[in-house]
Amino acid sequence: MNNAITTTQAGVAETNRSRIMQHLYHNGISSRAQIAKALGLTPAAITKITAQLIEAHIIEETGDFGGAKNRRSIGLTLDTTRFHVIGVKFARSLVQIGVFDLAGNQSSLTTLPYVSNNTIGTTIATVHDTIEQLLHEDPTIKAIGMAVPGPYLRKNGHTAVVSSMQGWRNINFIDEFADSFTVPVFIEQDARAGVLANSLFDQDSKTSNTSLAYYLVGEGVGLGVIEDGRIINGALGTATEIGHVSIDVNGKPCDCGNIGCLERYCSTPAIHQMLIDDGTIVKDAASMSHTEACRALFALARNGNKAALAMIRTIGTYVGYGCLIIFNAFNPQTIVIGDIVSEAGQPLLDQIKTTVKQRAIPEIYESTTIRLTSMPTDAAVLGAAAVAISYFLDHPSEFFNLK
Amino acid sequence: MNNAITTTQAGVAETNRSRIMQHLYHNGISSRAQIAKALGLTPAAITKITAQLIEAHIIEETGDFGGAKNRRSIGLTLDTTRFHVIGVKFARSLVQIGVFDLAGNQSSLTTLPYVSNNTIGTTIATVHDTIEQLLHEDPTIKAIGMAVPGPYLRKNGHTAVVSSMQGWRNINFIDEFADSFTVPVFIEQDARAGVLANSLFDQDSKTSNTSLAYYLVGEGVGLGVIEDGRIINGALGTATEIGHVSIDVNGKPCDCGNIGCLERYCSTPAIHQMLIDDGTIVKDAASMSHTEACRALFALARNGNKAALAMIRTIGTYVGYGCLIIFNAFNPQTIVIGDIVSEAGQPLLDQIKTTVKQRAIPEIYESTTIRLTSMPTDAAVLGAAAVAISYFLDHPSEFFNLK
Repeated sequence: MNNAITTTQAGVAETNRSRIMQHLYHNGISSRAQIAKALGLTPAAITKITAQLIEAHIIEETGDFGGAKNRRSIGLTLDTTRFHVIGVKFARSLVQIGVFDLAGNQSSLTTLPYVSNNTIGTTIATVHDTIEQLLHEDPTIKAIGMAVPGPYLRKNGHTAVVSSMQGWRNINFIDEFADSFTVPVFIEQDARAGVLANSLFDQDSKTSNTSLAYYLVGEGVGLGVIEDGRIINGALGTATEIGHVSIDVNGKPCDCGNIGCLERYCSTPAIHQMLIDDGTIVKDAASMSHTEACRALFALARNGNKAALAMIRTIGTYVGYGCLIIFNAFNPQTIVIGDIVSEAGQPLLDQIKTTVKQRAIPEIYESTTIRLTSMPTDAAVLGAAAVAISYFLDHPSEFFNLK
Repeated sequence: MNNAITTTQAGVAETNRSRIMQHLYHNGISSRAQIAKALGLTPAAITKITAQLIEAHIIEETGDFGGAKNRRSIGLTLDTTRFHVIGVKFARSLVQIGVFDLAGNQSSLTTLPYVSNNTIGTTIATVHDTIEQLLHEDPTIKAIGMAVPGPYLRKNGHTAVVSSMQGWRNINFIDEFADSFTVPVFIEQDARAGVLANSLFDQDSKTSNTSLAYYLVGEGVGLGVIEDGRIINGALGTATEIGHVSIDVNGKPCDCGNIGCLERYCSTPAIHQMLIDDGTIVKDAASMSHTEACRALFALARNGNKAALAMIRTIGTYVGYGCLIIFNAFNPQTIVIGDIVSEAGQPLLDQIKTTVKQRAIPEIYESTTIRLTSMPTDAAVLGAAAVAISYFLDHPSEFFNLK
């Protein structure tokens, strides 16, 4: 099982450029000697590659700074404010476009009008116009990342299913956007964008970012997994679609064709339906959006409403069943639960852990961290930006003339 | 997301040695020019590395053979009969020890007496003695591979659960075997060994061996997945444990602590219980072993027994539910179904495909090959050998003095 790509000479050079950029990105100012030691590269290789990166204005020298044994040495830095990316998050009814620097700091955010099945075309046109305008205003934008609901067929450009809003299936994201702009566009399934954002920007996740799962529980239920330092994609790009794994083969039918999909039990539309069926906890649930209804439930629970807390325990049980699937299928070191449902907070997390503890293999339960995201929910668009930033850091020669 | 390991100079050298060995292993006699072209390496690099491999007697020159444009050139070959490995397959009640050459040709096979919970200690002692004897007789044996039931905790050496035979949990395979012999020992979960065997030896799988799942349906239910050319292991080595993914969160309890595990519905113990409960199809099922009872059922079905065929359709439906989990979790290009249950043959496969077609996302159904293994079931021990062979081909410097 070899990773064949990195062993050609051009491949090794690009990998080492990328590793130096990533080292500076994650560790801040470093001397050449520190980089050489951290990456196992020779001083000669470091000198050559850093010269190239400095000439291309990707990294730069700082003044002297304290090196090993108090010797002064010249620092190198990757100025994360120098380059910008655009992140576009396509949820079912919510489309947001943000501009970020490489450290994930947001310089602008545009939220498009609420999308329905009938207005998808208009929305797409607005996305084009907004991006054109942003590129015109900010020449430091190097790339665009887009996050779309899964299962996303990465090679053909379509999402295969968008439960409760099938109109998105008609959009071919590749045809629509890939060659539309002066900078490259990278399109990824939303939960996979989320795991990239966690590995890049979340201080708590960074330490375990070679074995990390981001479990998105929102309008859909999705999963992104970094296994041994690499994203799991699958042959068509539709792997890690936990939302369509069945938890009950005789259960509720799903738009995807399967029966009993996890998504049918703990996504915001599922919770919204629970609230409508219940009729008492959130009395006007039927007139709310999915997100509004869920947030009303979570607010009641925070105020100690017992019926609301009981419903959160039901939801936590289902989210916990999903964690058990993740344990057995992917065995990551850390599961980060994010998106709207994670706003239910501690009572949700407690129930998830209770459910998982009851049913998991003890050794796996004890060694796996399950926690709620520490990134704000509205930062979901940051996941889209993370797709572009990851690509930028991984493939510098596609953005600069490096030889 | 970089693969950090291969970019040190020693790492690149080892990777390139391994790639040349693998090229010769998979493609047979090749000239230096052919290898250089196939692997994107410079002629100088090829000359240096092949000289080293020839000096270590890993590869050798053949006489002239036809090169490009009818020019004669010297061939290189990796003689797969020169080195042997031992494969040890630990199933629940069946332990087999085989000696194989690098191409998977078996030169001997020892089947140990039927194992029960009480005789596991004796069995372990016999494994030691048998291996010692084989190593004494055959100095070309370079490594030992062992395949054990999952979930196998690779770092600590224990299997976490062995449904229906918990005595195996007390064995620490690493403590027991890792440093016991004059050659190195590599221990792997059985289905992962199976996917390696398929990628090395199965002509039909070789073409898709960068995206391949081996779905073991036997005394246990397991899965090994090669994603983008690499095995998915998980943080503790317990990933891809599909047998303990629940298909019904309110279903049958499992020894692992979970409820409704797939393994409870289509493993040979589950089928055996179905036959005992039925009482009519295989009348003396209660007095048979799991495997015997299953084979009696399959024989009846082959002879057209309608009740037997109906039960195979039930089994195929459950195996199909497992394929749906594999689709959504891993999205491999090919799923190969192996071990005892695959002996049910075409009626089983037909039902699996029917079930999957009804419930899968059409694009994934259409692009995924599902087939029964073309390797004989008794070749399961070959999977253990494949673990050793893969390691040998991936890490030559651990077996030879190469510098």
